[in-house]
Amino acid sequence: MNAHETRAAEIAAGILRGERGTLARAITLAESSRDDDQELASQVITNVLPATGKALRLGVSGPPGVGKSSFVEALGCHILDRHKVAVLAIDPSSPKTGGSILGDKTHMEELARSERAFIRPSPGGTSFGGSSFGGSSFGGNTLGGVAAHTREAILLCEAAGHDVVLVETIGVGQSEYAVADLCDLLLLLVQPGAGDELQGIKRGIMEVADALVVTKADGDLTAPARRAHQDLVAAIHVRHASAPMPPVFVCSARERTGFAELWREISACHAGWVESGEIARRRAAQDLRWFEREIEVQVVKRFLAQSSVAAAMPIVIAEIRERRTTPLVAARRMVRSVLGG
Amino acid sequence: MNAHETRAAEIAAGILRGERGTLARAITLAESSRDDDQELASQVITNVLPATGKALRLGVSGPPGVGKSSFVEALGCHILDRHKVAVLAIDPSSPKTGGSILGDKTHMEELARSERAFIRPSPGGTSFGGSSFGGSSFGGNTLGGVAAHTREAILLCEAAGHDVVLVETIGVGQSEYAVADLCDLLLLLVQPGAGDELQGIKRGIMEVADALVVTKADGDLTAPARRAHQDLVAAIHVRHASAPMPPVFVCSARERTGFAELWREISACHAGWVESGEIARRRAAQDLRWFEREIEVQVVKRFLAQSSVAAAMPIVIAEIRERRTTPLVAARRMVRSVLGG
Repeated sequence: MNAHETRAAEIAAGILRGERGTLARAITLAESSRDDDQELASQVITNVLPATGKALRLGVSGPPGVGKSSFVEALGCHILDRHKVAVLAIDPSSPKTGGSILGDKTHMEELARSERAFIRPSPGGTSFGGSSFGGSSFGGNTLGGVAAHTREAILLCEAAGHDVVLVETIGVGQSEYAVADLCDLLLLLVQPGAGDELQGIKRGIMEVADALVVTKADGDLTAPARRAHQDLVAAIHVRHASAPMPPVFVCSARERTGFAELWREISACHAGWVESGEIARRRAAQDLRWFEREIEVQVVKRFLAQSSVAAAMPIVIAEIRERRTTPLVAARRMVRSVLGG
Repeated sequence: MNAHETRAAEIAAGILRGERGTLARAITLAESSRDDDQELASQVITNVLPATGKALRLGVSGPPGVGKSSFVEALGCHILDRHKVAVLAIDPSSPKTGGSILGDKTHMEELARSERAFIRPSPGGTSFGGSSFGGSSFGGNTLGGVAAHTREAILLCEAAGHDVVLVETIGVGQSEYAVADLCDLLLLLVQPGAGDELQGIKRGIMEVADALVVTKADGDLTAPARRAHQDLVAAIHVRHASAPMPPVFVCSARERTGFAELWREISACHAGWVESGEIARRRAAQDLRWFEREIEVQVVKRFLAQSSVAAAMPIVIAEIRERRTTPLVAARRMVRSVLGG
């Protein structure tokens, strides 16, 4: 065993003992843009792999202001006596701004105080995805890069004994699809209020959500939340005429109401899907997509790293800008000149 | 000049003379999955490139049933005395089913009769995107593959003298983003009816749409269309408090009302953006993304075509299925074993 393998084994052992600091450091390694860090993280994950896969992986998404963090804290606290909870976040703003949706205000003070909870606010300010050049970022889907690191973080949390992993994301752009693709179940949170407010729900996301949850059913918003619940049930009934309908729940993070019913249904659904093989089927499909995406990322990264590519790139981009060639022809020519054929 | 170049020159000349049959055949070549067809199409496009880029490229999207085809026909007929119109379609269902959203009913009988219009209902039943294996399709974004062919079709239509190119797509999944990325302006069509009906509008797509159009403002739906218009103006006002607001139009394809105002605004906006350099800026960014995407597609295709990759693939996929390795580690290992390093 070389020094590298020894270090990986030590980190893996720490994670399996449930050391939160070691878990946090391993996730940082996985998120690092340095090759040696990623290599070490991969070795650690390989070591702990037999101890992974046991958690209920629950995605939580919704529009800005819907109260995701309060919801996650309330749900986490509700199940903390029976489960070790981990909270992760996919932050679609991170690749561009280096900022964080959760960094400044986590709203999870109570959950954070528990020894049984592990909270990782966001992938932080590290940069993800492929190389960038010409003022534009390669790799197409930098969100995919962030999601790839979250997949590794889920495995690490599972190895540390967390049997519920909550993955939250803000519902902008394509981030819900990224979360849906790495969780067993996806909850879509919805603002109380009908009509106008419900506009924010995307048609596509309704189809990947396994359940809808109307938040903030307290105080002045109790009646609007109930109306939103009815409207959603009616809307879903129309849309899902021939398919199983996702259930709609109502809850209040402030008053901690609705979580018992919500969790009962979610955990029963998950247990049923584990039994029926649906979870295994979903995860196998997710793993295959992750593999394909990673092949793409690695192969393109190798190509762009070649010195002949780097040298030709500004010239080719100038030709495209001056409309002396089409992007398609330029790309084919460049690939052929570097890889032959 | 070899036989290949001679044939490309002949096709290019036919397109530049405005021959509709030649234009149609050239688009078929670009859509073909055969390498020699694509090579010929690229040569044709390179030949006609100086004659391209002059059209107003207008995307039209909206939910199923909103009346896109009727809208496109009515708009096309409205401008036919001043413009040569081409209609293209991006069909998100095509890569999977081989079917077509427009194939069976084009709703464009009147436009189709004109010598000045060219209608290409959909990319047809050809297959796009990268190779597929293991029950899943590589390339991540087969829609991107369809869109790439539509980009070439736009250039070919421009070369044939079409100075307005309408690109329609059904608003499901991610297809609107694909259309937004190859047009100068995107119109989002909206059903008349408020509240519930407006739910179908995705938050994200509102941000890439340059204008909204309420359709079917005739008969019983005249009043609902007007209400939808008011609701949309109010909703946009709230959302775009600090940004320029996309205008909202109302029209009836059946009664042919609203199109004069709509076209006046669209063409004035486009002319202003040509003047200001906004169109050039948008197209340069689109071309760069097209180039990057095409590099990815080509490089991954080359990788997957290698015999060692094809041989190793089933073994690696089995390892992932049996959870003996993670997709990330498996992908890195495979890329390293084939490309070295």
